[in-house]
Amino acid sequence: MHTAIAMSAPSAGAALAKTPIDLGPLRDDHVEIAVSHCGICHSDLSMLHNDWGISRYPLVPGHEAVGTVAALGSGARGLRIGQRVGLGWYSSSCMHCRTCLDGDHNLCPSSEATMIGRPGGFATRVRAHWAWAVPLPERIDAASAGPLFCGGITVFNPIVQHNVRPTERVGVVGIGGLGHLALQFLRAWGCDVTAFSSSDSKRDQILAMGAHRVVSSRDEAQMAALKGSLDFLLVTVNVPLNWNAYLDALAPRGRLHLVGAVLEPIPAPAMALISGQKAVSGTPLGSPATTQAMLDFAARHRIAPITESFPMSRANDALDHLRAGKARYRVVLANDLA
Amino acid sequence: MHTAIAMSAPSAGAALAKTPIDLGPLRDDHVEIAVSHCGICHSDLSMLHNDWGISRYPLVPGHEAVGTVAALGSGARGLRIGQRVGLGWYSSSCMHCRTCLDGDHNLCPSSEATMIGRPGGFATRVRAHWAWAVPLPERIDAASAGPLFCGGITVFNPIVQHNVRPTERVGVVGIGGLGHLALQFLRAWGCDVTAFSSSDSKRDQILAMGAHRVVSSRDEAQMAALKGSLDFLLVTVNVPLNWNAYLDALAPRGRLHLVGAVLEPIPAPAMALISGQKAVSGTPLGSPATTQAMLDFAARHRIAPITESFPMSRANDALDHLRAGKARYRVVLANDLA
Repeated sequence: MHTAIAMSAPSAGAALAKTPIDLGPLRDDHVEIAVSHCGICHSDLSMLHNDWGISRYPLVPGHEAVGTVAALGSGARGLRIGQRVGLGWYSSSCMHCRTCLDGDHNLCPSSEATMIGRPGGFATRVRAHWAWAVPLPERIDAASAGPLFCGGITVFNPIVQHNVRPTERVGVVGIGGLGHLALQFLRAWGCDVTAFSSSDSKRDQILAMGAHRVVSSRDEAQMAALKGSLDFLLVTVNVPLNWNAYLDALAPRGRLHLVGAVLEPIPAPAMALISGQKAVSGTPLGSPATTQAMLDFAARHRIAPITESFPMSRANDALDHLRAGKARYRVVLANDLA
Repeated sequence: MHTAIAMSAPSAGAALAKTPIDLGPLRDDHVEIAVSHCGICHSDLSMLHNDWGISRYPLVPGHEAVGTVAALGSGARGLRIGQRVGLGWYSSSCMHCRTCLDGDHNLCPSSEATMIGRPGGFATRVRAHWAWAVPLPERIDAASAGPLFCGGITVFNPIVQHNVRPTERVGVVGIGGLGHLALQFLRAWGCDVTAFSSSDSKRDQILAMGAHRVVSSRDEAQMAALKGSLDFLLVTVNVPLNWNAYLDALAPRGRLHLVGAVLEPIPAPAMALISGQKAVSGTPLGSPATTQAMLDFAARHRIAPITESFPMSRANDALDHLRAGKARYRVVLANDLA
């Protein structure tokens, strides 16, 4: 089976159109996934508009795909036909460089992205290296799981990489697709959780997601009261902030951690970093092993994305909904393309 | 004994003059050190010129003091009269906040600096809280030990704090007072060590200090060849660099670490931090316990500052020598003020 039906953009910024695509012969080390659902991430918009200069057209978006294994290459390992799996931003790694052998497949210099130069998850079928088709635990609902494979692992990975401890005071900036999952993970992790949001309308929901308190980032008095208090501050937005106010909110040894692709460089003041032993850092999505750990943790703690559903054939409407800032909190497309 | 003789600056940028000073009654938790030697650090120049806006005058510089315990307050612990000790940038911490109780006395929000609002080490006597008068191991030479208490601990502390491992590839930018000690520590630590220097004249000495190779930071081809290779990059200079070239030299999970007080903010590009799981961070001088560990390590590995000696009465000449960039590699004043 080399053909599929996809929602495809012929050029930068163009609307998606339902199109047959040719997936070509299945690579030995790849698997083919019959997509049942695919989440929509802000990066899908950035890629559609070529904001990062790395898009290739025609472009089939989608890197939060969930479905079942429909075909296995002869060298695929650890999966069986019909098994439920999810696929995120990365679709393959070389598996043999030192970084891969160290378990950091997500940092492999030869890694490939699901939707760059190859069709993504807004399609009936999507392909990936077997290592990146990560099995879904039984207790995870396929209809809402997609966002875990990009938004979820993006905010879970830094907690693991930087060894955030349950005794720490943490903050989450931006309570959207990523942030609403970060609140759930960090609350279940045992931390003291502060949410930063400029939207009063989300307040009750944010507390229900796990925040111990909500701070308005526009309120200077509230920000000043936090001075020196936070051990870990996770920034999920992709726009410039009042960085100095957030750096001031860090406790000694505190970390300002970025997972949102802010285009303007963050002006990091050496004196503030030095005197408080602070850091500014970033992480991409996690490795296959960290993704499995995240899924196990989510299943054990009943953590799930809060989603809105659109039929995949109406992906353009769904993208408009996200563009308008109306998504509460992640949009998932249910596949009706077949 | 409340009086001492010091080299004191009456106002910003003024020459030092030999002056009697009144140290006042000895605090219960303080000790008085009879200074035999005091190193000179670039921060002494910055403080003399009030570059950071925190200086108070008259100002007695000096925060790399070595000597013997001459008097003990009634609450001083762990020291005896006549014991050899050293004193660095910090002279006291509250000892009871959570940060102090956690061993991070150097990050205590109530810490005091040796030469801010109180006279520093360019004097016959200097005072400090007992915890910050750190005993000198027997094998450490008093005449050259002073620079360990600022330059030395400044570059040793990040190796400990960020758990640099002997298997890592590390770089040191700027081979001066701090950098020449960093090379010695990192070589003894077991790392692969690259020195960055723009001075050809230091090359042989730099290799003798422990670098496996010397790279000219002005040579674009040499810099490009390092792309993606360094796990830990210690920046000891206090001037803006080609930050992107250094960030590019970092391996996945790499860290650009600052100990030099660069005044201009470092423009940290979010995408580079995120995609390579990189960090920009800083540390101040270490805690008393880390200082003790540094001294033990230096004694075991025969690590010592390379020093030039001036009589303390000629501190102005010594400061001019440092200002002119001629110090190889750290200037130490031998006390002749008595």
